[in-house]
Amino acid sequence: MSFRDRLGDCAGKVQARLDAAMAPLGELPVVEAMRWACGGGKRLRGFLVMEGAALHEVADARSVHAAAAIEALHAYSLVHDDLPCMDDDDLRRGLPTIHVKWDEATAVLAGDALQTLAFQLLSDDSCHPDPAVRIDMVATLARAAGAEGMVRGQALDIAAETAEHPLTLAEIETLQAGKTGALIRWSGEAGARLAQTDPAPLSAYADALGRAFQIADDILDVEGDATTAGKRVGKDAEAGKATFVSLLGLDGAKRRAAELVEESCAALDGYGSRAERLRDCARFVAARDR
Amino acid sequence: MSFRDRLGDCAGKVQARLDAAMAPLGELPVVEAMRWACGGGKRLRGFLVMEGAALHEVADARSVHAAAAIEALHAYSLVHDDLPCMDDDDLRRGLPTIHVKWDEATAVLAGDALQTLAFQLLSDDSCHPDPAVRIDMVATLARAAGAEGMVRGQALDIAAETAEHPLTLAEIETLQAGKTGALIRWSGEAGARLAQTDPAPLSAYADALGRAFQIADDILDVEGDATTAGKRVGKDAEAGKATFVSLLGLDGAKRRAAELVEESCAALDGYGSRAERLRDCARFVAARDR
Repeated sequence: MSFRDRLGDCAGKVQARLDAAMAPLGELPVVEAMRWACGGGKRLRGFLVMEGAALHEVADARSVHAAAAIEALHAYSLVHDDLPCMDDDDLRRGLPTIHVKWDEATAVLAGDALQTLAFQLLSDDSCHPDPAVRIDMVATLARAAGAEGMVRGQALDIAAETAEHPLTLAEIETLQAGKTGALIRWSGEAGARLAQTDPAPLSAYADALGRAFQIADDILDVEGDATTAGKRVGKDAEAGKATFVSLLGLDGAKRRAAELVEESCAALDGYGSRAERLRDCARFVAARDR
Repeated sequence: MSFRDRLGDCAGKVQARLDAAMAPLGELPVVEAMRWACGGGKRLRGFLVMEGAALHEVADARSVHAAAAIEALHAYSLVHDDLPCMDDDDLRRGLPTIHVKWDEATAVLAGDALQTLAFQLLSDDSCHPDPAVRIDMVATLARAAGAEGMVRGQALDIAAETAEHPLTLAEIETLQAGKTGALIRWSGEAGARLAQTDPAPLSAYADALGRAFQIADDILDVEGDATTAGKRVGKDAEAGKATFVSLLGLDGAKRRAAELVEESCAALDGYGSRAERLRDCARFVAARDR
């Protein structure tokens, strides 16, 4: 199966798991909003979990639960990030955001419940038969998502908006290591954790991939098309924010992204050709148009 | 030790655990806001965890981690509940709320990170040496806090504000079973879970106590003093909301609370006099002035 086909395959399996998890919750607006937030998207993090797991002989039927968990957590972060008091975005994946389609209270609560759902999915027996593995998944995700990880990055991002000087390259790297890097690294490592083996190679892979991802995001904000991207573009320049592009130049940013893709692929040398779809993923991430 | 002394004893231990958990997070505004949100309060839920644990010979040094977790989760729920798009409260425990003292984005993020912290505390080795117990704590808390539990109650509460008719008694009971009942029941059961014994008696105790708690809250909103309560009072009547008081009358509500206290105490018969402080807690909850 090609990388593109496998990405779609994982996305379908993750969606089915999320649908099943939310089916018993009924029809309240907050639950409809949770479903809305979990619709669409590339499911890149879910793919990383499932493909990293497959590399260690962990079946999709096992890894899909952790993949669904990270996608629920990612969806929560987007819902809260889009709020008027945060990035104030009306459009996400080409569709109205939750506070636009419903209201702000529903967006806050739907995001809250999606974070909870992520930990619920990891703690469920179906995630892994060994409770020690499940609690390791919970503990590592909590570290990646909280005030040491993702939330720290988001807080630094907000602080940057009112900072007296634009951020330096080192400051942006720290910010992004939290904001997007922590969850991507967790996703990359998850397959090794489910297989109870050393996550170091997948961790190095996902770390470089995450950094390439963010540079590509900055490039997309400059070169991208809102219709294809499914979200507002040009907003960083508009806000006068320092980005990898403003600091490295467009060509410099593209070169840096290409180096990181190389680094990411090289981290998988030990897996040989079996890791080719993960390498394709790194190439895809750096060149994506949405 | 009397109930009052034990309540303060547990509060101090919980505070120390929360302080230690947040110490490595540094000085960012979002972290200061998390600390602010975790300051003060009766720590009723933490007391229930620790006293229920002590009843099963689980030491405070062990139960304090789960107690801190539930208080972090409770703090998150208050921070988000106080947001302008939710209850829009400026005052909590007699002090400005986070979106007033900092801003809305900081309140959203601090709440998000406090929820994550709760799961981090439960997943840490210190919570219990057996991973199976830790994952049980995580799984049950996720069920209590998410769209089946607390968030469901909050969503029903918001829906009630725009409903065509005031809620019936049965509807209010369903709402409150989620909004405040689920976390209080989890807290009550936690000691038995840590001791790996049947949580049914503590569950019945905490269920009745939680219902008495909410009726007392409605009574407080009518009879209470803002200075003592440390928060705005009279807001339910102002909003024309159906409450236990509007549906049962003030005397009827007080009678119902007293019945629930009896029920709550009776659930602990099997523990004899060793459970007297938990019984005192039920009496306290129904008669509290803040």
